[in-house]
Amino acid sequence: MSLDADMLAMGAHARTAARDLREASAATRNHGLEAAAQALRAHCAAILQANARDLAQAHAAGLSAPVIDRLCLDAARIAAMASGVEAIARQADPVGRELAGWSRPNGLSIRRITTPIGVIGVIYESRPNVTADAAALCIKSSNAAILRCGSEAFESARAIHAAFTEGLCAGGLPPKSVQLVEVRSRQAVGLMLQGLGGSIDLIVPRGGKSLTARVMAEARVPVLAHLEGLVHVYLHEGADLEKARALVRNAKMRRTGICGAAETLLIDRTILTTVGRAVLKELVAAGCEIRGDEAICTLLSEAVPAGEEDWQSEYLDAIISVRCVDGLEDAISHIEHYGSQHTDCIVTEDAMIAEEFLRRVDSAIVMWNASTQFADGGEFGMGAEIGIATGRLHARGPVGAEQLVTFKYVVRGDGQCRD
Amino acid sequence: MSLDADMLAMGAHARTAARDLREASAATRNHGLEAAAQALRAHCAAILQANARDLAQAHAAGLSAPVIDRLCLDAARIAAMASGVEAIARQADPVGRELAGWSRPNGLSIRRITTPIGVIGVIYESRPNVTADAAALCIKSSNAAILRCGSEAFESARAIHAAFTEGLCAGGLPPKSVQLVEVRSRQAVGLMLQGLGGSIDLIVPRGGKSLTARVMAEARVPVLAHLEGLVHVYLHEGADLEKARALVRNAKMRRTGICGAAETLLIDRTILTTVGRAVLKELVAAGCEIRGDEAICTLLSEAVPAGEEDWQSEYLDAIISVRCVDGLEDAISHIEHYGSQHTDCIVTEDAMIAEEFLRRVDSAIVMWNASTQFADGGEFGMGAEIGIATGRLHARGPVGAEQLVTFKYVVRGDGQCRD
Repeated sequence: MSLDADMLAMGAHARTAARDLREASAATRNHGLEAAAQALRAHCAAILQANARDLAQAHAAGLSAPVIDRLCLDAARIAAMASGVEAIARQADPVGRELAGWSRPNGLSIRRITTPIGVIGVIYESRPNVTADAAALCIKSSNAAILRCGSEAFESARAIHAAFTEGLCAGGLPPKSVQLVEVRSRQAVGLMLQGLGGSIDLIVPRGGKSLTARVMAEARVPVLAHLEGLVHVYLHEGADLEKARALVRNAKMRRTGICGAAETLLIDRTILTTVGRAVLKELVAAGCEIRGDEAICTLLSEAVPAGEEDWQSEYLDAIISVRCVDGLEDAISHIEHYGSQHTDCIVTEDAMIAEEFLRRVDSAIVMWNASTQFADGGEFGMGAEIGIATGRLHARGPVGAEQLVTFKYVVRGDGQCRD
Repeated sequence: MSLDADMLAMGAHARTAARDLREASAATRNHGLEAAAQALRAHCAAILQANARDLAQAHAAGLSAPVIDRLCLDAARIAAMASGVEAIARQADPVGRELAGWSRPNGLSIRRITTPIGVIGVIYESRPNVTADAAALCIKSSNAAILRCGSEAFESARAIHAAFTEGLCAGGLPPKSVQLVEVRSRQAVGLMLQGLGGSIDLIVPRGGKSLTARVMAEARVPVLAHLEGLVHVYLHEGADLEKARALVRNAKMRRTGICGAAETLLIDRTILTTVGRAVLKELVAAGCEIRGDEAICTLLSEAVPAGEEDWQSEYLDAIISVRCVDGLEDAISHIEHYGSQHTDCIVTEDAMIAEEFLRRVDSAIVMWNASTQFADGGEFGMGAEIGIATGRLHARGPVGAEQLVTFKYVVRGDGQCRD
């Protein structure tokens, strides 16, 4: 068969599986997920062997240390993957929930009830664990999944997928509930982005900016994603020095490569030499490069001058751009102009100012006195996330099983006709 | 200025207006809507004069009677338009609502709060009243609107838009809150579908199938729409004869041109000569053409044979396709295969069977013992609708002000850092 025919067949299988999953009870789906978690543990050795093949190839190809780190599995990571699947199984059922209900004067009863989306395509790069996380979130929400993993993690993904599917089948779910694209050409991605003949309802890309940009540019089906996390922390003049020091250090330096890491720091001019200096010294001590505007470079000898491109940069590295601002209005304007509507934070003890920031800043996640690295489905208590969305439709912020549903209206009458 | 520059400027104005609308209180927005309603009444004569120009051109161009009917305004229709705007003003505020809220073990408070979508583009054809309805729903939900009306209704839309904007401004809202595209080329639609340089967040098409198909095929921004309403009514063997007769007649014949009108009737074989015959006789008496399968043609001399294309046809006319089925499973299979996931209905007194139908049929609206012509935002109690959606993301069914919002997460902490 040609690639096109193969992929279309995969779409048709997914559509059939989605129908079966729609009819599967919560108990059946949860049982399948628990069996999948057990299978992941049982096949730990096989998964590690597959991972070793990926790693050997990655070393041979000279891939970077961060990529190899993301790729690398060990027994503890596989156990964590299995526990994650079990945690998702224990969550409340997102399907069949009544979101709203009312009655009309003519006696019609109208209920808005959550239903699965259908078939979800997940396109990801070098993290093998996305295979289990994404599959589990889709099954939890009664959706069929088509997974397309980056070729550097393909062997690992295949082993995880095989174990996961063995578990799902043992739990009584359809074998095609979660399918892994075996073709390693980029063309397969293109076909998924076209929707496989109407068989894909939603695409979720998980990976770097170039993958996400391609998906957003080419997809002919809805996409939930974020292109970048240009995260701001604003130190308002009412900021507490110790909180600010710890928060900014954590927001920037805990892990610099994640989308919730802070990239730009805005500091009120009135606290530049007090809170500002202390926070910047702390960052420098932690090994962070400071790219500042004129006021910051005057304040701190370690700072280098920031250019226009710095306000537009998601470094994903131990670098931060720092700007001196004149109060809330100025900070909000900067965020509005340069932000990516992912996560933005204010640090202050002034509750009135904080509430104004939270109300006015139009990002998926707005924070007050909390590290922006909490921008994560797990930290939000969702168990896991299939991704973080910064678009404006359907869902924003971390996307968990609860967001992988749509709804329908159920109308019950007793013979009502319309006038 | 070129068309492109004009349209881009319109997008930029809309983005600025959206920011102002986001900050406008519910009281201000509602006050603006009430002033707009008053202005519509005050400018009734000017609107009717503009409408007369559209009608003269429509007659000269030989447009069809249904188009001219949709186009035609009178004082009563304008008064109804104004009352509709006031009804929307009286609805609960859809913005700033807490959809969910919880606290984390580390003390973080997380709230999911509704926020406006931003800028909504509405592309419609010959119904001048969409100008006021769509504008009111967008303002109610704090969104800026860019309206593009079909050229046959342009003069009427322009007069309605002028009055509406006069009211909004009198109420203290930005003059560019609702903009009407004055360029009458199809190219303007193409530019809107590209998003006007990132200035449009959502497109809603309102009109015939060819307009909607074009929007769906070309849009590079999210779309809420339905391509067709291939609405089914299933007469289960437990159907009550009198209810069935009245419901089917109403569902098909009350107005044949609306998307909630029934297009296919499925009748259980066991009640073909009882309920089935009575219902079909009623339809024939009401002037409906019956296109039936073999069993139906045998039953009813007035029936003509249905071909495969009949099960795929949204007639929007006094024609219905009728098929004999063997119970619930058969009916659901037919709907799954041919349906458009708009609205589907079961008529039965058997509650268990009805609940199974409501649960299993995967349409935006599923009904039990109610006319499918209730598939309408007004009839649902939403005051008005900007359209009906049959996609699977964001919203399904009638889209009112409550669906024209998105949400953000508001996270309040006390200095929490992530481990």
